[in-house]
Amino acid sequence: MERFDRFYAPRLRGLRASSIREICKLITRPDITSLAGGWPDPATFPVAEVVALVRDMLTEHGEFALQYGSSEGLPELREALAVRAARLEGVEVAAEDIVITAGASQAIQLVSKALIEPGDVVLVGSPTYFGATGTFRSFEAELVGIPLDAAGEDVDALAATLPALRAAGKRVKFLYVIPDFQNPAGSTLALERRHRLLGLADEFDFLVLEDNPYGDLRFEGAPLPSLKALDKSGRVIYMRSFSKTFAPGLRMAWFAGEHDLIRRIVILRQYDDACANTLAQYVLLGFIRSGGLDRRIRENVAFYRRKRDRMLELLAAHFPPGVQWNRPEGGFFVFVQLPPRLDADDVAARALERGVAFVSGRPFHVDGRGSNTLRLSYSQADLAGMERAVRRLGDVLRECLE
Amino acid sequence: MERFDRFYAPRLRGLRASSIREICKLITRPDITSLAGGWPDPATFPVAEVVALVRDMLTEHGEFALQYGSSEGLPELREALAVRAARLEGVEVAAEDIVITAGASQAIQLVSKALIEPGDVVLVGSPTYFGATGTFRSFEAELVGIPLDAAGEDVDALAATLPALRAAGKRVKFLYVIPDFQNPAGSTLALERRHRLLGLADEFDFLVLEDNPYGDLRFEGAPLPSLKALDKSGRVIYMRSFSKTFAPGLRMAWFAGEHDLIRRIVILRQYDDACANTLAQYVLLGFIRSGGLDRRIRENVAFYRRKRDRMLELLAAHFPPGVQWNRPEGGFFVFVQLPPRLDADDVAARALERGVAFVSGRPFHVDGRGSNTLRLSYSQADLAGMERAVRRLGDVLRECLE
Repeated sequence: MERFDRFYAPRLRGLRASSIREICKLITRPDITSLAGGWPDPATFPVAEVVALVRDMLTEHGEFALQYGSSEGLPELREALAVRAARLEGVEVAAEDIVITAGASQAIQLVSKALIEPGDVVLVGSPTYFGATGTFRSFEAELVGIPLDAAGEDVDALAATLPALRAAGKRVKFLYVIPDFQNPAGSTLALERRHRLLGLADEFDFLVLEDNPYGDLRFEGAPLPSLKALDKSGRVIYMRSFSKTFAPGLRMAWFAGEHDLIRRIVILRQYDDACANTLAQYVLLGFIRSGGLDRRIRENVAFYRRKRDRMLELLAAHFPPGVQWNRPEGGFFVFVQLPPRLDADDVAARALERGVAFVSGRPFHVDGRGSNTLRLSYSQADLAGMERAVRRLGDVLRECLE
Repeated sequence: MERFDRFYAPRLRGLRASSIREICKLITRPDITSLAGGWPDPATFPVAEVVALVRDMLTEHGEFALQYGSSEGLPELREALAVRAARLEGVEVAAEDIVITAGASQAIQLVSKALIEPGDVVLVGSPTYFGATGTFRSFEAELVGIPLDAAGEDVDALAATLPALRAAGKRVKFLYVIPDFQNPAGSTLALERRHRLLGLADEFDFLVLEDNPYGDLRFEGAPLPSLKALDKSGRVIYMRSFSKTFAPGLRMAWFAGEHDLIRRIVILRQYDDACANTLAQYVLLGFIRSGGLDRRIRENVAFYRRKRDRMLELLAAHFPPGVQWNRPEGGFFVFVQLPPRLDADDVAARALERGVAFVSGRPFHVDGRGSNTLRLSYSQADLAGMERAVRRLGDVLRECLE
């Protein structure tokens, strides 16, 4: 068997495996307690409801629910999502400009394929979700990081970067942003920054890819309008996912945007996976119509709020002085700043020896920063495991600081 | 609302909508009988079995079956598919070199993304499936058509084309082939051509993408070994789909190939849709384990054989002299040759006025040929509709020939 490197496209050569996905292989070991993955707690999965929905939907629509569907997605589901976006999110989108995708991952992939030429600049938070930056890299984008603070992307830094990029002859195609309970930082983009960011998009002529997988999981405080709700020029491509509020294994998400762009991306999708899983679309439609989704979101908010509260208590009790972290208003993540002399990769290696897994901050940064940061997820571990893990991690940090 | 053409990547600009997918919008009209789409007959969908499998699998594995999965796919399913490939297809692949995808479409897309650089040559049958050629185009491949006859791709023509491409400085990355009951031609690649094709792949150093969605639906004659079963150098990437034998709405397919290539493509897949629908993977696993899939394939063979036989009877009874067609040994399609002076697009327009839809042959050809060809699918129409459609189409053809 020979190797086939000579056949690989350049886009394949520089690509690395996702750190999270590699760590997730480790954490199937029963002796490891994981604060690594941003996966939902399976205790939130509405198993009995899915069984009943599959039975009812297949009994009524079996001829369609096991057949190919349109590349845009099930019309009734797109209608229901448009109504829902208007009612709950202040977002006015036409059902015909909505596309159902296999997770927001696929939406990121389709938008990237539609827009990115090799060398195009994509602006991203530093840190940000490395599933997205990996996709942008896979289309040979040049990634430029915008620093984050407690109020999200630093728009002053963004405003300073844009003229420099323009002067250097770089073309910025879009900015990728997770405005609510960001992955990994847990921060929420402040309202005035949302307005300013959209102003900069108009001024410097780029699009905005708004990814909001955690927005429904707000534990406290008033929701802020999404960028899409504030968007006057149609520049925002708006993505929502049901992986954190319903069931990631069904791979259900959607995105919407300017009419012609969506029409073009639907053609691309015909040559991607042709159409989304039809049965999963019917199940989601039934879950929305029955009121099950709204109920589940309320329950999930209460459920993950308890886990966040417990995580914050544990951190306060067990982490040594000099280590700092944020208080996320929703979502799955606490982001930890270690004293600058510590390296989170070293801490991670030592923690793993003690049976605790987490993801260090470096792979979330596109600019080499973040070596003294790490992400802790409270979504997946049970409360006993979380306590054990944080106590041991506190011990490891104290040893590292000695 | 402004248009955003200036943001589009070049790969988006030349892309056209799939002719089939556009026609499928027409054929939802109740006054139209369609011989257009290659969709399975919903009468073959095992609705009650899927309901029971979902119930059983979710009851037993709900924690996993609604969760994210690995990018390779469910390990138990990959093991079961490797065993099945060895037992039924004479194909020896390691479970670790199998990837579960959302339909073979996604496999075509991932392989294309991994291999195609703009300007690379992809060799395809002329005619061939335009979902695949659309995907290759979406990665800016240059498509070179190899003529087909009743025994599949003309390997003499292939052997003559390859040195010419080499002399012109073109790089051939792979050849795409549907060896059994080809879409749209219904032809099966002869055994000696399979050997010769693999020899040319070795000699001219290209890979082979073998797509076999219809292979399980053989009505008569002995099965031929797949290219993968004959592959000694690991050049063949082997794709199988359950869309034609189980349920396309579940989007379940798999592909396998050389170890390092597969490992790279799994990394690409992390940045594509992250993982396949987990519930659908469990349902397929249960369907295989219960013996349901083997039973369903046997039933489908008998079911579609009857439909093919009826279609051939109707063509003989109603089509005018001078029109020719093949006798497919399996699959979904009869390919029709009109007298050269007829244009199938004109015939299609007239037929649509009479309530009959089909796909003309031209979009299946990458070299502008095929204007007097058309594809008739017997898979989806019921027997009464098929009779009505073929009789009317015979009338239209007679009028066109007058």
